[in-house]
Amino acid sequence: MIVILKKDPDKVQLEGLTTWLKAKGIEIHESIGSSQTILGLVGDTTHLDIDLLSALDIVEAVRRVQEPYKNANRKFHPEDTVIKVGNTKIGGGNLTLIAGPCSVESEEQICQIAQSVKESGATILRGGVFKPRTSPYSFQGLRDEGIRLLSIAKKLTGLPIVTEIMDISQLSYFDDVDMIQVGARNMQNFELLKALGTVDKPILLKRGLSSTYEELLMSAEYIMAGGNDKVILCERGIRTFETYTRNTLDIASIPVLKQLSHLPIIIDPSHSAGRCALVDPLSCAAVAAGADGLIIEVHNDPAHALCDGPQSIRPDAFDTLAKKLRTIHEVTKAVDVK
Amino acid sequence: MIVILKKDPDKVQLEGLTTWLKAKGIEIHESIGSSQTILGLVGDTTHLDIDLLSALDIVEAVRRVQEPYKNANRKFHPEDTVIKVGNTKIGGGNLTLIAGPCSVESEEQICQIAQSVKESGATILRGGVFKPRTSPYSFQGLRDEGIRLLSIAKKLTGLPIVTEIMDISQLSYFDDVDMIQVGARNMQNFELLKALGTVDKPILLKRGLSSTYEELLMSAEYIMAGGNDKVILCERGIRTFETYTRNTLDIASIPVLKQLSHLPIIIDPSHSAGRCALVDPLSCAAVAAGADGLIIEVHNDPAHALCDGPQSIRPDAFDTLAKKLRTIHEVTKAVDVK
Amino acid sequence: MIVILKKDPDKVQLEGLTTWLKAKGIEIHESIGSSQTILGLVGDTTHLDIDLLSALDIVEAVRRVQEPYKNANRKFHPEDTVIKVGNTKIGGGNLTLIAGPCSVESEEQICQIAQSVKESGATILRGGVFKPRTSPYSFQGLRDEGIRLLSIAKKLTGLPIVTEIMDISQLSYFDDVDMIQVGARNMQNFELLKALGTVDKPILLKRGLSSTYEELLMSAEYIMAGGNDKVILCERGIRTFETYTRNTLDIASIPVLKQLSHLPIIIDPSHSAGRCALVDPLSCAAVAAGADGLIIEVHNDPAHALCDGPQSIRPDAFDTLAKKLRTIHEVTKAVDVK
Amino acid sequence: MIVILKKDPDKVQLEGLTTWLKAKGIEIHESIGSSQTILGLVGDTTHLDIDLLSALDIVEAVRRVQEPYKNANRKFHPEDTVIKVGNTKIGGGNLTLIAGPCSVESEEQICQIAQSVKESGATILRGGVFKPRTSPYSFQGLRDEGIRLLSIAKKLTGLPIVTEIMDISQLSYFDDVDMIQVGARNMQNFELLKALGTVDKPILLKRGLSSTYEELLMSAEYIMAGGNDKVILCERGIRTFETYTRNTLDIASIPVLKQLSHLPIIIDPSHSAGRCALVDPLSCAAVAAGADGLIIEVHNDPAHALCDGPQSIRPDAFDTLAKKLRTIHEVTKAVDVK
Repeated sequence: MIVILKKDPDKVQLEGLTTWLKAKGIEIHESIGSSQTILGLVGDTTHLDIDLLSALDIVEAVRRVQEPYKNANRKFHPEDTVIKVGNTKIGGGNLTLIAGPCSVESEEQICQIAQSVKESGATILRGGVFKPRTSPYSFQGLRDEGIRLLSIAKKLTGLPIVTEIMDISQLSYFDDVDMIQVGARNMQNFELLKALGTVDKPILLKRGLSSTYEELLMSAEYIMAGGNDKVILCERGIRTFETYTRNTLDIASIPVLKQLSHLPIIIDPSHSAGRCALVDPLSCAAVAAGADGLIIEVHNDPAHALCDGPQSIRPDAFDTLAKKLRTIHEVTKAVDVK
Repeated sequence: MIVILKKDPDKVQLEGLTTWLKAKGIEIHESIGSSQTILGLVGDTTHLDIDLLSALDIVEAVRRVQEPYKNANRKFHPEDTVIKVGNTKIGGGNLTLIAGPCSVESEEQICQIAQSVKESGATILRGGVFKPRTSPYSFQGLRDEGIRLLSIAKKLTGLPIVTEIMDISQLSYFDDVDMIQVGARNMQNFELLKALGTVDKPILLKRGLSSTYEELLMSAEYIMAGGNDKVILCERGIRTFETYTRNTLDIASIPVLKQLSHLPIIIDPSHSAGRCALVDPLSCAAVAAGADGLIIEVHNDPAHALCDGPQSIRPDAFDTLAKKLRTIHEVTKAVDVK
Repeated sequence: MIVILKKDPDKVQLEGLTTWLKAKGIEIHESIGSSQTILGLVGDTTHLDIDLLSALDIVEAVRRVQEPYKNANRKFHPEDTVIKVGNTKIGGGNLTLIAGPCSVESEEQICQIAQSVKESGATILRGGVFKPRTSPYSFQGLRDEGIRLLSIAKKLTGLPIVTEIMDISQLSYFDDVDMIQVGARNMQNFELLKALGTVDKPILLKRGLSSTYEELLMSAEYIMAGGNDKVILCERGIRTFETYTRNTLDIASIPVLKQLSHLPIIIDPSHSAGRCALVDPLSCAAVAAGADGLIIEVHNDPAHALCDGPQSIRPDAFDTLAKKLRTIHEVTKAVDVK
Repeated sequence: MIVILKKDPDKVQLEGLTTWLKAKGIEIHESIGSSQTILGLVGDTTHLDIDLLSALDIVEAVRRVQEPYKNANRKFHPEDTVIKVGNTKIGGGNLTLIAGPCSVESEEQICQIAQSVKESGATILRGGVFKPRTSPYSFQGLRDEGIRLLSIAKKLTGLPIVTEIMDISQLSYFDDVDMIQVGARNMQNFELLKALGTVDKPILLKRGLSSTYEELLMSAEYIMAGGNDKVILCERGIRTFETYTRNTLDIASIPVLKQLSHLPIIIDPSHSAGRCALVDPLSCAAVAAGADGLIIEVHNDPAHALCDGPQSIRPDAFDTLAKKLRTIHEVTKAVDVK
């Protein structure tokens, strides 16, 4: 961390600052120029509050050199983290396909889709039951009843299941759920993140619509600081000025997050685009760029899905896509951008 | 709502669609052109799921004409809503000043600031106790103990108090709180919004960092649909490409939200800019543009505040500012952009 | 185009509007509802000024149904356009690799790089000579002398050359240039676009940092309306809130632009990321998503390049990458998202 | 400027770097920590190419401490710059109202509006003649004939005139123009900026749709580096995710740019909002926040204006607004945020 002092800083205040920093185990290196003095802080600055420093009368600006996250940081954990979900592994060179409907609608629907995506090579079943909808008048999901239906499909197919949690109070329903999803709108629901830090299940953490890489990793840090190391990052599109697609898939997030962190990264091509015609090219791009997996919406009757129909693809399209993705994965898995 | 059909739509599907719409009480007006057919849907389309319609095979695109919110919509409630908080009224031509520290730190601190801002003309006291912090290693607030201290300051000064809720489970601590704040990061925490819809207290709803006007009003609609009409909107800056300021205050939100909705709007100049030097000009601008009030961070010792020090102003600066704001309010309250 | 009228529109004004529209050859279909009247305009609305219509007293809103571009629109030209540059073809299933240094620096440098990238499979040589630099104090390029050096490399290797034009007045230097590049900052330099509409050379049109797909296609339309149909679109990253990468590569632009337009699309992975470590994964992603080609910065000595060094890759890295890209292209060229 | 070195930097390369920097007159202060070495560069770093430094093998990151602009920087010119346009002064506590139609349409139109806005207190006349339009099929302006008409209005009223230039080649028509406007889309048309640096006329430089404060000031620097110090900055709204308004007026730009630079700043409320109903509140906000003036579109017949009708206000509305703005200016001109 670098502290740029104002011209002619008050000596008493400066001494106060340096004493305080040294007490925190920070080494200080002063660069006294004719017009400016700069302090280089060396040591573990993760716990230093940058706002506090900036607020001091003698400080002009503070620049971070090190990342403010530690558990999620590749610098301290050079090896890729591999996370087990049921019998499947995410990370470490595997290509994990997670598939299923946007919403669980009925036992027949979820079981049919589960069997179909399993045959195409999906190893985890997704299905929404607690649905975050912009409008209070839209379908809100089958809630706990939906989890019961997911469990039936799990028993039938052996696929582990992942579904979204929207509030701490719902946690009691998640006993049979193998991986808990935190949605984009809850990425900075810090109370929820803290609660999930004490749970012994993998967490699929989606990036917020306007969250930076650092903020995503800080949210992962919240969960990890609580003791739960099994965090999987998920890019699902960010909000930009372009409104033709629902969101803009940030494809560079894959190599960047892999550089900054050891956690696996999954791409959601369905929500980022909001159009089924884009699911295929975006999935191919994600695998080619080095993603550890994809979470894709598949519906046996997209035109009548209770929500998000336009972005779901049919089981046969998923089957064709899965084959292509495995081929691209073979070709590109030599890619290493660390 | 307008439905643009694909060329040569399937007749059976088209009949299915029109029958379904009519059953929902929607009138349909067809425009059959040589190259395109358009359906104009007239009636209450608030409950129609636009995604469902878009997903139909025969539909090329759907365009909304009416807003998807009803309770928050000025078209259905032409008069300004005025909301009582303690003995103060927000809306209806009043200029409400809400002031206080970012975080409650001690009884002495909160009582001292409360008395000082009251003398300067603030009519509501703010103070954070449950703090949403990006880093798990930053100060997280005094939590329920903080609410106890706010209550002491309330008894001392008679000022009603407002503070932020971060999770439904905290609601039991809010008995003595006069207005509950929903922070920007929780604007789409739909479970929390539903819970607040059943509470008999005013809700200060902050706009999310990348939420549109419509999304903000849909979140207000969530609370109102639950039966709680006392919603106050709050603009606190949006996330843009410009990073010199923490966020970009969207000043046009004031006249736009007043046009679209009957709810009062409060501006937060402290968080939008993140720098105390900008609080004065942004506050003046907000009042000149027609805001119903401001929520301003005031600290007796900004340089040592436990959080967000750089954006807090001192009590004497607040006193000077409050005088100027009242003068601008007198001059501009004739402004009417409805 | 759909015109939503205000409630109880003035009859004389409405008649005036309908007469005016009919005179322009537009068919009008009225949907008169109890609370709203909607006009469906059918015919060629490309030349209608949407701002003009919106401004009328009787009009509440106007919604476009058809795209405002015609020459660039796939609806009117269903077949992919294939463009010849020297002996190379861009579009139609080919994968075109354009490579070379950010700036031309010397005869030795450009000739060496040209030979090297040719051996690796590049079929067009790039090199900047008129450089758009944010600072007036940065290196501004070798200008016309640079074009002379590019011509030498062209003669030596037989590779056609592409370089950026910054102002109409520079056109006289471009005789020996095979494809003229319009940079992101000039995408809406309409006078320049008009001038290039009368030139008989392919134009590589880069998307502006905050330009929508429609604006990019409207800029292509400017060139095409002047008579020059040889436009190649280029996505090079857009400006978003995320500042860790220089820009955010919008990977979805590839399938979207291919859906909307028949023009070829080239991706620039070097400028979008601003970091050489990202060039490999972003290039792979672009080819997997269906791009017609890539324009990549290659420098024999990136650390001492006169500009944009950090994003250039070395010739050997380009060689490895080119091989991988051809393999991915083989695997994915069956992808068709039209 | 601060250079953060990679761990264990190569000694020969490090010596090469320090020798090179010292030769440029830069003082170097080393902070050698156990895990990291930091160089503090003190002196005039304006001319150092930050990309070049970042590209070096031994460098991990470079952080700027000083701004890269000099002529436009308040640090080197603490006093406000006041610029004469005809007999009017912009800056230095004056409130300058610039008004007129979006496009010049006829002698009668421009003369009528000119007289009317003069009576209401405008001191400069605006009117577009070279029009940057997104579509090649929209009205492109009267061009040089329009300037002739503006000159007639100037003679009639004595008001100095401002109009936009789109290309260097148009400069010959600007003899009688008192202030030359550079539009948002040309803010980084560097060849045009260089040409305007040699002109002896004030330049009204509009901020690009997605340009940062620093980029705006660097574009001002281009003009000033050429010898023309008479630059007036103009904020006209930036592009964000919110599309309800055409652009988002960045009100904080006023105090921020006044802090960073000594140049005057003018606000354009007409283009930022794109709706006439917002012109009044945005203008009031701008004056309250400390703007040096406003540029407002006024049309005697907005509903039939040839372009941008929806955002123009009528002469009588301008008259009322001008009175209110002068009152707000009186009340707030004590504001000083430097």
